[in-house]
Amino acid sequence: MSSPVLGILGGGQLGRMTALAATRLGVAVRVLADAETGTGRPFDDVTIAEASDPAVLRDWAHGCDVVTVESEWAPADLLLEAAPGTRLEPGVAALAAIRHKGRQRRHLAEAGLPQPRHVWAETRDEAQDAVGRFGAAVLKRFEGSYDGYGNATCRTPAEVDAAWDALSADDGLLVEAFVPFQAEAAVTVARRPDGEAAVYPVVRSEHRDHRLWAASTPAGFPDAVEAEARRVALATVAALDVTGVATVELFVLADGVLVNEVAPRPHNTAHLTIDASHTSQFENHVRAVLGWPLGDPGLRVPAACMVNVLGQREGPAAPDLADALAVPGASVHLYGKAEVRPERKMGHVTVTAGSVADARRRAEAAATAVRL
Amino acid sequence: MSSPVLGILGGGQLGRMTALAATRLGVAVRVLADAETGTGRPFDDVTIAEASDPAVLRDWAHGCDVVTVESEWAPADLLLEAAPGTRLEPGVAALAAIRHKGRQRRHLAEAGLPQPRHVWAETRDEAQDAVGRFGAAVLKRFEGSYDGYGNATCRTPAEVDAAWDALSADDGLLVEAFVPFQAEAAVTVARRPDGEAAVYPVVRSEHRDHRLWAASTPAGFPDAVEAEARRVALATVAALDVTGVATVELFVLADGVLVNEVAPRPHNTAHLTIDASHTSQFENHVRAVLGWPLGDPGLRVPAACMVNVLGQREGPAAPDLADALAVPGASVHLYGKAEVRPERKMGHVTVTAGSVADARRRAEAAATAVRL
Repeated sequence: MSSPVLGILGGGQLGRMTALAATRLGVAVRVLADAETGTGRPFDDVTIAEASDPAVLRDWAHGCDVVTVESEWAPADLLLEAAPGTRLEPGVAALAAIRHKGRQRRHLAEAGLPQPRHVWAETRDEAQDAVGRFGAAVLKRFEGSYDGYGNATCRTPAEVDAAWDALSADDGLLVEAFVPFQAEAAVTVARRPDGEAAVYPVVRSEHRDHRLWAASTPAGFPDAVEAEARRVALATVAALDVTGVATVELFVLADGVLVNEVAPRPHNTAHLTIDASHTSQFENHVRAVLGWPLGDPGLRVPAACMVNVLGQREGPAAPDLADALAVPGASVHLYGKAEVRPERKMGHVTVTAGSVADARRRAEAAATAVRL
Repeated sequence: MSSPVLGILGGGQLGRMTALAATRLGVAVRVLADAETGTGRPFDDVTIAEASDPAVLRDWAHGCDVVTVESEWAPADLLLEAAPGTRLEPGVAALAAIRHKGRQRRHLAEAGLPQPRHVWAETRDEAQDAVGRFGAAVLKRFEGSYDGYGNATCRTPAEVDAAWDALSADDGLLVEAFVPFQAEAAVTVARRPDGEAAVYPVVRSEHRDHRLWAASTPAGFPDAVEAEARRVALATVAALDVTGVATVELFVLADGVLVNEVAPRPHNTAHLTIDASHTSQFENHVRAVLGWPLGDPGLRVPAACMVNVLGQREGPAAPDLADALAVPGASVHLYGKAEVRPERKMGHVTVTAGSVADARRRAEAAATAVRL
């Protein structure tokens, strides 16, 4: 046996950070990306090609010991058709269950996991009826809804009509009762093919304009709520049989949590683990998909906060870190994207500190001081 | 201004780890290596060519905003001849002063820094005379002595004769009084072109067969000794006008320290800063040579220990980390070298823990469990 070769299907920042962690472990990385964005540029073995082309997939997969995906939308099914012997982690069944929000809810319901009241509405009337009962509801496209896209909050029949026209597919759409949550949290789990798992500390996530802005840990919820969040996250990942790392986003209520959604891949809310945990989500993703022993997900610092660095204009990137790095404790991560676009995730800043308040203040100061 | 391009002259593990840190910061990396060993393989912009060829150097340096070296032996002089406008950090004068152990000692003496008694012996008789006065002495080749090579410990005239024949150059050799040190320590300093500097915590280093085996921090010396070690290290680096990171290796006495030698580059004794410090030596090297604000060199954990992973046979590498990663807290770093050789540095393991003793025990267990 020589160094394992890890294939990463997808060429964004998650693949880039996974590749950095793999390189540190001496694992060779092979990336397949469908566009040259700059994130993969430092690496040698990057194929830029149409990832839905069977010939591309077959050639690329040849020589990978394990293939993982950067997104639940990676063409995993096509990969296994084109290169049937490929060891894919997470597997196609888990990806398919997560991609479709209706099937995701059904799996979690069957496993008895706490989630918002919801209806898989196959017709407009079923959607109207559900919103009538829920009072306020979020209508979601089954596939392709994220960060505020493909969703609509509805209270009136007219709003439901408009949402139905915009979002429904052949099999309808998902109606979820609006959850008056107290806060949002996320728990990342690393899980090996044999079921061994490591659960990261609970992260408190804050959104702005439907996009993640800041993530902090310790999350500061009551102990019982944090224990429940970790229990639910682990059970969710096990119910969906996800391998590698996955993040479970949760609504936090006064006395418990509800599963919002699941991402079967490294996640923005766990980027702080690079600086704050004994073993980062990216390293544990590599370890998990290779079937290696998992590392300690616990914190090696009292507290940490991550704030995203978002684009604020359109044009070629011209990063200048001098001001950001002058903020004490700022650990700046840029993704190498060649083009800035408004709201595009260009990087993130993590600060580890004695308290979340201190880390939060400095991370926000540094993130907003990154000039792009 | 777009992303800066950092050129690294040298293709070993120090360049590899510098490149990983640079990538995280969004800094583009261009490597010039004279052989394909595997360490540079994950990176795209690696030139494998004869680094003493002016045409190679000129083409490679074109487009680098700053060039740094992986070793004091990199052909810095040739680079500046071939590509005169290159911004080189550290500069040629610092590298030249460090490469020649006689000139290094002379610079430190002029700066009043504590070092072993020594004589720049230009003739055999001067060497004999110095050893006669010192009782026991180490004779060192001026250039190219390291890790037990190019050195000889002498007590008798016959030993001095043999050492003179083997080690002396046109300008003689260095005779240093043997230092009955209590321990060995190393202090790494990051220093910008404008003189701003950050000093890392003192590391206790342990050698086996003249090669670094383990490095631990906190070093556990009396406070006054540690303060003196840090003062001497900073003054040494300033006296030699080194930019980027440099490590000062020290002999520790009951009541102070003596400078053993200086390395103007990232150093094996500071690899533990990747896992243990707020900002690693590699990130601070990148920041320093680019003139960016330096990061906090302090520890974010109570204690850490690094143990080297050395080759034990000859042949193609076939790493297997399963046993090593099963050691709690083991952070394994492999350098991607394709060929194993006895005693070759193939990687290292760092463990961060509540105490040095705990970190030391586990790091050694994990390092020896890496199968190559």
